[in-house]
Amino acid sequence: MIMTLLQKMGYGGCWRVLVLGVVLWWSVIISSAGSVGSHSLGSRTRHFKFQVEYMYWSPDCVDGLVIGINGRFPGPTIRVRAGDTVSVEVTNKLDTEGVVIHWHGIRQLGTPWADGTASISQCAINPGESFVYRFNADKAGTYMYHGHYGMQRSGGLYGSLIVETEEEEEEEEEKEPFHYDGEFNLLLSDWWHQTPHEQQVGLSSNPFRWVGEPQALLINGRGQYNCSLAAKFSNSSAAQCKFTGREQCAPYILRVLPNKTYRLRVSSVTALASLNLAIGGHKMTVVEADGNYVQPFTTDDMDIYSGESYSVLFTTDQDPSTNYWVSIGVRGRLPKTPPALTILHYATTSISNLPPLPPPVPPLWNNHTHSKLFSNKVQALAGSPSPPATSHRRILLLNTQNYINGYIRWALNNVSLLLPETPYLGSIRYRLTKAFEKRAPPENFPSEYDITMPAKNQNSSYGNGVYTLRSNSTVDVILQNANALAANTSELHPWHLHGHYFWVLGYGEGKFREEDEKGFNLKNPPLKNTVVVFPYGWTALRFVADNPGVWAFHCHIEPHLHMGMGVVFAEGVRRLGKIPKQGLGCGLTGKMLMDNDNNRD
Amino acid sequence: MIMTLLQKMGYGGCWRVLVLGVVLWWSVIISSAGSVGSHSLGSRTRHFKFQVEYMYWSPDCVDGLVIGINGRFPGPTIRVRAGDTVSVEVTNKLDTEGVVIHWHGIRQLGTPWADGTASISQCAINPGESFVYRFNADKAGTYMYHGHYGMQRSGGLYGSLIVETEEEEEEEEEKEPFHYDGEFNLLLSDWWHQTPHEQQVGLSSNPFRWVGEPQALLINGRGQYNCSLAAKFSNSSAAQCKFTGREQCAPYILRVLPNKTYRLRVSSVTALASLNLAIGGHKMTVVEADGNYVQPFTTDDMDIYSGESYSVLFTTDQDPSTNYWVSIGVRGRLPKTPPALTILHYATTSISNLPPLPPPVPPLWNNHTHSKLFSNKVQALAGSPSPPATSHRRILLLNTQNYINGYIRWALNNVSLLLPETPYLGSIRYRLTKAFEKRAPPENFPSEYDITMPAKNQNSSYGNGVYTLRSNSTVDVILQNANALAANTSELHPWHLHGHYFWVLGYGEGKFREEDEKGFNLKNPPLKNTVVVFPYGWTALRFVADNPGVWAFHCHIEPHLHMGMGVVFAEGVRRLGKIPKQGLGCGLTGKMLMDNDNNRD
Repeated sequence: MIMTLLQKMGYGGCWRVLVLGVVLWWSVIISSAGSVGSHSLGSRTRHFKFQVEYMYWSPDCVDGLVIGINGRFPGPTIRVRAGDTVSVEVTNKLDTEGVVIHWHGIRQLGTPWADGTASISQCAINPGESFVYRFNADKAGTYMYHGHYGMQRSGGLYGSLIVETEEEEEEEEEKEPFHYDGEFNLLLSDWWHQTPHEQQVGLSSNPFRWVGEPQALLINGRGQYNCSLAAKFSNSSAAQCKFTGREQCAPYILRVLPNKTYRLRVSSVTALASLNLAIGGHKMTVVEADGNYVQPFTTDDMDIYSGESYSVLFTTDQDPSTNYWVSIGVRGRLPKTPPALTILHYATTSISNLPPLPPPVPPLWNNHTHSKLFSNKVQALAGSPSPPATSHRRILLLNTQNYINGYIRWALNNVSLLLPETPYLGSIRYRLTKAFEKRAPPENFPSEYDITMPAKNQNSSYGNGVYTLRSNSTVDVILQNANALAANTSELHPWHLHGHYFWVLGYGEGKFREEDEKGFNLKNPPLKNTVVVFPYGWTALRFVADNPGVWAFHCHIEPHLHMGMGVVFAEGVRRLGKIPKQGLGCGLTGKMLMDNDNNRD
Repeated sequence: MIMTLLQKMGYGGCWRVLVLGVVLWWSVIISSAGSVGSHSLGSRTRHFKFQVEYMYWSPDCVDGLVIGINGRFPGPTIRVRAGDTVSVEVTNKLDTEGVVIHWHGIRQLGTPWADGTASISQCAINPGESFVYRFNADKAGTYMYHGHYGMQRSGGLYGSLIVETEEEEEEEEEKEPFHYDGEFNLLLSDWWHQTPHEQQVGLSSNPFRWVGEPQALLINGRGQYNCSLAAKFSNSSAAQCKFTGREQCAPYILRVLPNKTYRLRVSSVTALASLNLAIGGHKMTVVEADGNYVQPFTTDDMDIYSGESYSVLFTTDQDPSTNYWVSIGVRGRLPKTPPALTILHYATTSISNLPPLPPPVPPLWNNHTHSKLFSNKVQALAGSPSPPATSHRRILLLNTQNYINGYIRWALNNVSLLLPETPYLGSIRYRLTKAFEKRAPPENFPSEYDITMPAKNQNSSYGNGVYTLRSNSTVDVILQNANALAANTSELHPWHLHGHYFWVLGYGEGKFREEDEKGFNLKNPPLKNTVVVFPYGWTALRFVADNPGVWAFHCHIEPHLHMGMGVVFAEGVRRLGKIPKQGLGCGLTGKMLMDNDNNRD
């Protein structure tokens, strides 16, 4: 698709585009992921090799360490077709740290050991060692991959995973329910100058040290800390950026032809920031969310929370003699980070012509009404599968901020998740009863809890028990937001479920009431894997526990997860046959397997 | 001993001492190491628990991360008696990093799996898991412990290990060949504001990023970056330090009574700096080096290289109405780091009286003659065991700085050590032939090699082969220094041998010649575990391979080891019986042990 368009644009084999008078490489160089395809009729296995290592890099024009893959940051984009088996051999080239990679949005049907969550689906890969993630990319869509151990995602361990629709014989027929002439992929993240270790230790310290707002927002790993691309419109003193185009922090330019329709894939792996994206002068039509088609709707700007992905279409129907800003700003927190900017560049004009109009201004950070309107517009494409009409079980999860022995933590129903050293998948499969608490965490919270005020008793406790879900049962989860420790404070939390899609049945204000269930959208609720819970509100979701494994469900804000904001679901684990041993070599599963070795002593 | 002196000094149960008008704790609070003694006649087992974690700390008055133990930096001092069995349960509370602890100077007779060297004696301890180091403290002396994985030593993972002489029934008779009234322990280190990861990645980058000179030298983890204790004598603009005494960077004061003799234990775990210590107005008598008694000699200042330990005696025979500086400066490299300072404080005057005389000035950094004179004075105490008169094997190790594919590395006989992911002890014991190169590295280097010039061919190659030593054979090693990559440059390297003491048979200038063997000191060579090789010189040492195990022998400069400056000796490994499995759960040993599990699938 990209190649086709590039050819149309007259680039042929030379994938370069002039930026601010100089040369920039398109970042969609698929071959860099090191894929070797073994193609066969129908489906095929695509092989990739990832070497994960720290490197000096300059994501926001400030030199520092990032966790890169194959010498690149962000990691290479994986692009496969629906139905392909993806095999990624990840080799840990970090010096002393373990590593895992989570394939965010991939359900891992039948391969729960390949979910890439440390302490849950596998032991971290030791330095110098490799682990092969092998899974089916069963569903076309826009996904990402990222670290899921400690706060390595904050350190830059992420990339895009794009699953295209199945190949249709020789035809070039579109299998998507929409048409487009070309596409771009934007992977959004936020960036700190503090290392992930400094951040993580600060969050675990007493006195608490919050990570603060990010120093920069990055588009495809590129942002600007010391300068602004749109300095002349800024009322700060930021200098105008000067790029030759070869800088690691030079912007990723969207070069377009007039009167074409483009698909913009957008995904967010931010550690903290909720974002809003707008293209100056251009409307967008949302067509995909989290790998599922949605009923198209048009918008001037779109929200995207950490862990979400969208596809939007836009048509280059504006004055082709100027360029336009693409602006991505912070939502939900008082923004101290300038918007990420890049340029929608009409090939009919020079890239050196900076857009004449100022960048789009994001909605006011605390205009939650605007965000709710957007979220509520996201509905399943007509004809999408409907949710079961009723559920077998409802779990209410009260989101609170608490103290434990003076440490600040997040908790669900007053339990703050502290992951065990033995991954659950192995310890549950092999009935290692000492690996974690046997008692399941609570399904509910006291009915008199006042979500509008700081808790009367702000103390919580650590826990690592799991919610065991009956196989193929339908589960409702109500995420209930509440006041945090400080008065008049309630935060946004984007919750992400591993191993499944869920239907978003609705968002509500205040405390969830029994009668709110009557308002659930059972007609066209969107299928997603990540959903926001708004301040002082609730979000209801439904899913079918049809994928044997152990699955994290957590706030996708990296510091919040580190501070305990997650729960663990286990389903049908005893039905699993053999679990590959290569992910079991730590903790009690490692001990069990080694103790059974009777050939040596 | 300490307690006795404190009582003499009138402190009784209250171990406080006024410093600059305020209160400072003595750092010799043995109980803080969490020891529980199970005492029996003769010998006993001393149990310690170490929790290793990152913490925010201010070693040089600048806030940052250190790797601490039990909430302290440096780690707690372990103090046991000769003959005790030491059992340290190390729990890894780092988030994503493995950890090991090496007991520097302990030979680990019969317990090679407790040497605490990642990739050599054991797998790194996974986050959340524990490993018990159990070994005999067979020999009284001044030792240390420190990280031996990646560059975690540079991150602050170290502490002191002091083995006192055996308890003699009820008598308080001295078993040491010298007398003293009290003692102090100084653990010296150097400190960077760059994290160990930033340092390590820089060293492994192309272009190369050298770590630079340390921001501060630390005495017992305390130094001053932004101020000087002796500002008034300094010709820099450093401000006078102002301490209440409770600061983590307030100096460790040596409080003495007049006309007493004190033992000063000094050990260095610096990552880079070679040091020189002097006490204003006081001479020192060297009595111990690396846990072995030496023929006492008197000196105004003493050199100490990374990995070395000394005991010196000094008598408080100076004017008791003033205080005196203790100064520790950099040797061997153009110093860009101010000397570490503290105060020898006569209890007969006020601590607020800063010493009237300027701090002792270290010898000029490149006055190697001064250093050689000192090193040559270190000789075994009369009556110490003599070395075997001849050796069975001689290994010459040419120390060179090289390039490999554009990366700067150190090499021995043109092989730059790159440690394997499977620790040697397990892979050799279980004949896992793919774990490392079967070919042994060279025993020698081309006779025509010109050590006075940059190499004609500066390229080297990675290797991880081992030198296999015949059990109980006597081995000579000649460390041959040479010119580094740059012209007219040859550096100091302090080499440290694990698992043994060696006799230092001599130091020489230029290239070692066959006839130099005639000059070997076989009469009273000192037994050491760390020895320096001087620029453009050689150092000869002899040891008996009488300790089955796999042992590192390497430059103790942390960046140099990381850059490949080490070799591995294996001796009698097949004679070892059972190796505890808890250190084998990674790489090919982990796979072997888990693959032999036939009870589960």
